[in-house]
Amino acid sequence: MSTKVQGDRQGAEPPAARHDPTRERDARFTTLSDHPVQPLYTPADLADWDYQSKLGSPGEYPFTRGIHQTMYRGRLWTMRQFAGFGTAEDTNQRFKFLLDKGQTGLSTAFDLPTLMGVDSDHPMSAGEVGRCGVAVDSLADMERLFDGIDLGEVSTSMTINAPASILLAFYLVVAEKQGAPWTRVNGTLQNDILKEFHAQNEVVFPPEPSVRLIVDLIEFCTKHVPKYNTVSISGYHIREAGSTAAQELAFTLADGFHYVEQCIQRGLDVDTFAPRLSFFWNAHSDFFEEIAKFRAARRIWAREMRHRYGARNDRSLLLRCHAQTAGCSLTEQQPMVNIVRTAFEALSAVLGGTQSLHTNSMDETLSLPTENAVTIALRTQQVIACETGVANVIDPLGGSYFVEKLTDELEAEAYEYFKKIDELGGMIAAVGAGFFRRQIAEASYRLSQQMEAGQKHIVGVSIFNDDTHSIPTLAIDHEVERRQLGRLAELKGRRDNAKVAAALDDLRRTARAGGNTMEPILAATRVYATVGEMMGALKDVYGAFEGGTGW
Amino acid sequence: MSTKVQGDRQGAEPPAARHDPTRERDARFTTLSDHPVQPLYTPADLADWDYQSKLGSPGEYPFTRGIHQTMYRGRLWTMRQFAGFGTAEDTNQRFKFLLDKGQTGLSTAFDLPTLMGVDSDHPMSAGEVGRCGVAVDSLADMERLFDGIDLGEVSTSMTINAPASILLAFYLVVAEKQGAPWTRVNGTLQNDILKEFHAQNEVVFPPEPSVRLIVDLIEFCTKHVPKYNTVSISGYHIREAGSTAAQELAFTLADGFHYVEQCIQRGLDVDTFAPRLSFFWNAHSDFFEEIAKFRAARRIWAREMRHRYGARNDRSLLLRCHAQTAGCSLTEQQPMVNIVRTAFEALSAVLGGTQSLHTNSMDETLSLPTENAVTIALRTQQVIACETGVANVIDPLGGSYFVEKLTDELEAEAYEYFKKIDELGGMIAAVGAGFFRRQIAEASYRLSQQMEAGQKHIVGVSIFNDDTHSIPTLAIDHEVERRQLGRLAELKGRRDNAKVAAALDDLRRTARAGGNTMEPILAATRVYATVGEMMGALKDVYGAFEGGTGW
Repeated sequence: MSTKVQGDRQGAEPPAARHDPTRERDARFTTLSDHPVQPLYTPADLADWDYQSKLGSPGEYPFTRGIHQTMYRGRLWTMRQFAGFGTAEDTNQRFKFLLDKGQTGLSTAFDLPTLMGVDSDHPMSAGEVGRCGVAVDSLADMERLFDGIDLGEVSTSMTINAPASILLAFYLVVAEKQGAPWTRVNGTLQNDILKEFHAQNEVVFPPEPSVRLIVDLIEFCTKHVPKYNTVSISGYHIREAGSTAAQELAFTLADGFHYVEQCIQRGLDVDTFAPRLSFFWNAHSDFFEEIAKFRAARRIWAREMRHRYGARNDRSLLLRCHAQTAGCSLTEQQPMVNIVRTAFEALSAVLGGTQSLHTNSMDETLSLPTENAVTIALRTQQVIACETGVANVIDPLGGSYFVEKLTDELEAEAYEYFKKIDELGGMIAAVGAGFFRRQIAEASYRLSQQMEAGQKHIVGVSIFNDDTHSIPTLAIDHEVERRQLGRLAELKGRRDNAKVAAALDDLRRTARAGGNTMEPILAATRVYATVGEMMGALKDVYGAFEGGTGW
Repeated sequence: MSTKVQGDRQGAEPPAARHDPTRERDARFTTLSDHPVQPLYTPADLADWDYQSKLGSPGEYPFTRGIHQTMYRGRLWTMRQFAGFGTAEDTNQRFKFLLDKGQTGLSTAFDLPTLMGVDSDHPMSAGEVGRCGVAVDSLADMERLFDGIDLGEVSTSMTINAPASILLAFYLVVAEKQGAPWTRVNGTLQNDILKEFHAQNEVVFPPEPSVRLIVDLIEFCTKHVPKYNTVSISGYHIREAGSTAAQELAFTLADGFHYVEQCIQRGLDVDTFAPRLSFFWNAHSDFFEEIAKFRAARRIWAREMRHRYGARNDRSLLLRCHAQTAGCSLTEQQPMVNIVRTAFEALSAVLGGTQSLHTNSMDETLSLPTENAVTIALRTQQVIACETGVANVIDPLGGSYFVEKLTDELEAEAYEYFKKIDELGGMIAAVGAGFFRRQIAEASYRLSQQMEAGQKHIVGVSIFNDDTHSIPTLAIDHEVERRQLGRLAELKGRRDNAKVAAALDDLRRTARAGGNTMEPILAATRVYATVGEMMGALKDVYGAFEGGTGW
């Protein structure tokens, strides 16, 4: 079917030309990413645009309108609040609270020591244990974390980078002990290490072994944990670091292409692993730019997977994604206004067709979320689902001259970036050249200059900033650290330390030989080796990344 | 210019047909108004649709995309929070607070006695003085209400029905005393009496003299207060009473047509008064239905003004509107979730192209808004304006297959209702036959049945309703009533009561003779006749409406 939207422009002045810029406010009419936008979009802007090739039907190539035929008519997105603080019991309680409030998936925040792959008793962990996430040192903590939660039923996301394989191993062994077969285990790892090199600092190993660990994990799960989303390729943190929407789109997809290439190089058939790759987007404050970004992402991924990587299974073409509202858009000032920002951002993610969503709590700029704050954040998603009617129609903005044009423009910008990365010699070379960090820093600087010049505004900060209102916040008990250290010491006394040493040796040996590390990690997990011990063994082989944070 | 969006459908299955309804959730896929929506909209849905005749350019006939050429690029909507409580001083302080927070227009809520046209010392006023709005008995209160606020600069909306002419007279005399010429006085009267017959009960006189008073006011302002919006034809209350979006649209426009016809019958040239008619819409919870409603309204009004009423001035074709988020969509339970609802509703009004907006405060189901609650409501508008980017592009949803189709469908539904009203013998006959009230009651009943059957949900009420959280509320001091009664007694002792009696006699005489009542109302205002006294004089002539509330 060819359904063209054509502009019959002969002899006609395009409508936009009637717009008189001298009658405009003194404002910078660009997106948050400083992408210029016209005053008006008309059919003339889509003159050479073809419905079938640009959009097509939902659930069909190129999936611009959504990855499923029925989209939210079939199933709503997963409402998944990122949560974690204190000890495993504290977080277990919050998980149960959220499920009770109607949340439909879990998402785990680990504390900084866990994220950096050291134990709670490491000197650098002091003051950080259980502070920004839950403290997990060993399988024993993971057992407490998911106590009473059926891992054969719930879908769990875990945000963890360098030690991702280790935490996944903990999770799988807990499932095993619960009697849940791995074939039923469902969830996602937020373990995209490339974005850490681009935008955050949770790196431990140099880029190449870092990627190798992910390939190990993909290879293992493809065989043994078939419903698990092996890597969540994440734009979120790239955006939080100050990138534009187009950079978030391009760098993230480029990271995805790199994983695909590495897996193919390992000898995996693209159609065996690609269906379990997933993505994680930021839902930032520029409403239409975000919607366009989600739509462009699906189209690019489908095209490249089919034409560049030769995927033949339609499921390999689907860009499935989680989204989180933009933490960096929230303000410490007037925290209740964050409810409003988060609401708009969440709506843009839903109109963009996300599969899963975290809505930030109003107090996340101040503390970990209170129960009340996280409930309102979850209710925001429920209002979208139950009250606004937006889930009744698939891709309701489809056909909007502005949204379609912006989708095309973001797509084109992404291809410009792909070209630059290729010119630099590909992903690892571009990381080494500092390309991503520099691009993001420049974008971030441009926005801050526009803020300073009064061309962009944040309500309550640069404008309308005379209010003071405070809200209750959550404090983390200092007792947490003492308790966690006691437990770790007790574990190290109780377990069979000879078995632990042997398991760690085995892990070193496998890593050195270039074998898949997942099996020895699982074996070390079962004898209660800690995160820090396994990471130490891997560091012995891979070395530490020199540009790291010193953890 | 003819820019057609055409569907080349030969031999092609329409995309929507690929949708498999057996794979849908068990849900009722209709709008809040129970208007059915397809799973998917494609160019096939706009097969015979013509860009130029359906949309055209903003600022040009039929104004679907907006009444101004530049829309929010030229000027943002007016941020206008409805406010009023206690004595005139209390509300004066709230007005100044709101202007200080960045509000750009005022909107006055009067208390029930004022709305019903009786004084604070009337026996029925007991307990109601200053409770749901500000108590205004005479010019003296109006002087206090706008003390220190330049009526030559600010734009003020006043929600007042039967006594509208009297409150306008108060306002004009305050302006006069401030030295602001009436030619600069700017604002709107929310005085559409027909919607009171349809949906509320603030009626005092029978329908015909009620409309006559409005025609008097329009005639007067057209000559003397040329920038004043003489009547805000209101769908808001029709919707709050439980109507569908299409009923709100149709009944309100029909009310507008009736005023136009009555003014023409009075001998006014349509182009002298039509440019100062304005509208007031509800922004309810169904996001796209509301956007479509705003767009359809402009197109219908422009067409009928041009073709039915022969307007030649383009300004007579413009449907300028205020909008308020739906009070009836808010819940007492989990009041902070109301921030979320209001945010989405406000966004729909802005995407619909409103000229002015009130955002409800989260606590309006519980009490009059606190300063904190009203600040967050105002901040909601400021976030839309400053952070979401939606004001950068005119009618950003233009071209969306779904939004355009829904706009067309709401328009068609409105014409069905116009036909029914005509068949009943026109507006006054249809009011007499109870047509509007019955239609609204039936719609409201249908929705409540769908709620009971679990086909529609309200978060925190019918679903996810296990929370309890409370917020601080505003209490009105009982002292208010005592203070207001003291003032009124003092006024009645101080003024020249013989002059008052003469002015009231003159008002009666003019009303009886069918003359324009505005001049004698202004004269009575200047000698401090009260609202109750003037309304009493008019009741002597017009009689009271038998179906009224007994006030």
